[in-house]
Amino acid sequence: MTSFTVYKGSKNGVTKSSATKPENLTGDKVLLRITASGLCGTDLHSLHDDVILGHEGVGIVEAVGPEGKHLKKGDRVGFGYQHDSCGNCRNCLTGNETYCADRAMYGTDKVDQGSFASYAIVREAFLHKIPEGMSDVDAAPLQCAGATVFAVLQAYNTRPTETVGVVGLGGLGHLAIQFAAKMGNRVIVLSGSDRKKDQAMKLGAHEFVSTKGKDKLEVSTPIDRLLVTTSAQPSWELILPIMAPGSAIYPLSVDSGNLEIPYIPLIFNGIGVQGSLVASRNVHREMLAFAALHGIRPITETFPMTEEGVREAIDKLERGDVHLRAVLTAV
Amino acid sequence: MTSFTVYKGSKNGVTKSSATKPENLTGDKVLLRITASGLCGTDLHSLHDDVILGHEGVGIVEAVGPEGKHLKKGDRVGFGYQHDSCGNCRNCLTGNETYCADRAMYGTDKVDQGSFASYAIVREAFLHKIPEGMSDVDAAPLQCAGATVFAVLQAYNTRPTETVGVVGLGGLGHLAIQFAAKMGNRVIVLSGSDRKKDQAMKLGAHEFVSTKGKDKLEVSTPIDRLLVTTSAQPSWELILPIMAPGSAIYPLSVDSGNLEIPYIPLIFNGIGVQGSLVASRNVHREMLAFAALHGIRPITETFPMTEEGVREAIDKLERGDVHLRAVLTAV
Repeated sequence: MTSFTVYKGSKNGVTKSSATKPENLTGDKVLLRITASGLCGTDLHSLHDDVILGHEGVGIVEAVGPEGKHLKKGDRVGFGYQHDSCGNCRNCLTGNETYCADRAMYGTDKVDQGSFASYAIVREAFLHKIPEGMSDVDAAPLQCAGATVFAVLQAYNTRPTETVGVVGLGGLGHLAIQFAAKMGNRVIVLSGSDRKKDQAMKLGAHEFVSTKGKDKLEVSTPIDRLLVTTSAQPSWELILPIMAPGSAIYPLSVDSGNLEIPYIPLIFNGIGVQGSLVASRNVHREMLAFAALHGIRPITETFPMTEEGVREAIDKLERGDVHLRAVLTAV
Repeated sequence: MTSFTVYKGSKNGVTKSSATKPENLTGDKVLLRITASGLCGTDLHSLHDDVILGHEGVGIVEAVGPEGKHLKKGDRVGFGYQHDSCGNCRNCLTGNETYCADRAMYGTDKVDQGSFASYAIVREAFLHKIPEGMSDVDAAPLQCAGATVFAVLQAYNTRPTETVGVVGLGGLGHLAIQFAAKMGNRVIVLSGSDRKKDQAMKLGAHEFVSTKGKDKLEVSTPIDRLLVTTSAQPSWELILPIMAPGSAIYPLSVDSGNLEIPYIPLIFNGIGVQGSLVASRNVHREMLAFAALHGIRPITETFPMTEEGVREAIDKLERGDVHLRAVLTAV
């Protein structure tokens, strides 16, 4: 093999192309054969960029560069949004490499390698072993969706006695419900209509609130941590009265405008709005172990990793018809 | 004495009036003779309400109710924004009584007693002993301005190695600079013009940035904790690029509109916006001890606690001419 198949963004959207396999791997670079990749909402932002798409990759190690130490051929690994960091700044040295100023993140020019491909070359340092018993398809959406919601709960020290609210029951939300429920939290799901109530309760929610048409929400317990997983911002006027004093809001959706939120309720109730981006590597690995221990699995819809399959999955995601996470699988 | 002098808000602004001294104190109520009171920007919001103004009070204990245990006649004490809380909710039981749903805070109908008065009756539980060697005039502005800025640094675990930014050099800002400098932090002051630079450096700042007319700010070190003490919100577009990843913004000013802040930089740099209101009692007492240990003193301009003096101080504050904190003193 001297080249492999990749699916890139382009002027006309996703396009099949090929990438050259390097003759020799350098440093701690690892060559993986991709077996599965999740499709995430943020992939849609890169459909017209000249990058190989995909950032929820799972695959099998084929070869390890001369400086690789921890992985070997045949290992099953995953990778997500982040591909590199400087290793030398305050953020890297404190396990916060997701905020390294010199980080290489999916969707930037430093990352030309995504997981919509037959192979990928990724630094060993940014690969994560997949726990035994977890399938490739299940592992894929955990690499970004799972890591993003778990990081909020874990990195900001949510305690098991707190009440966790989840706005939106989609790719991120359905994993957030499961993680929080298994962490011992009371979980309240906020969703537009009642349509997803049964699903939410099956996933471990204790309470379900439909928001459409309401000018006041009722919850049994004020919310301590609110994960906003919808693509648009919710109505903050509706949300703030059900937040506990001292609580935190984590807006996880990517929205290009301003955050606009009533000011006085934040001050008088000591509420925080905390930005958070994916997960550091340690938290990512804790997330995988926690998911394996508790049997936390995404609900997936699979598509073949072919030009047609990739296009179909993207079309379906754009129409909002994917239930709950699309995963492309190697053919 | 059967009644005492008070200065209240009214339709026509501040008005001299009188209040009845209860024949017998009940519960842990304490009767104080007020010796000094700071004048805070938030007092201006209550000028037309039927309340006794003032929430930076210092005085001498005259009498203690039957359930008072910790104070005795002659003790020098201070009180601030908060006068009561339920004592039984999660917030009260965890030292966060400032966020009790049943709190009695200055400016609400539960608080009819302020510090622009010759006497006040306040619960012992919400009075704080003034450290020896600290003057009444110096102690007064610490009861709200000092407590508010200290609480942000203390309650959210600012570490001495972090860089603290202070936006605005006024009543709150000039105390924030001193607290942060004595906590070991690198302190960067952001102010409109260069006019206050010398003062900032004398108070312990390490760096001064004037913001007027700038479309980009330069700092030696990204800011980890930003205390916004100006009455209006700063230009967030100017501020966000000098914030460190993982940093926190504390908007302390009272502004009735929305918080409007660019969204993506918050997410991608893990920045938080944290609301915070005055200080819990334990933090308030730590603040007084810290100020006493390090000789932290407000810069004050005194006015007599007379109808004329109160009016003059308020007029001067409204014109923005007070340097840096007005204090009314008993005549």
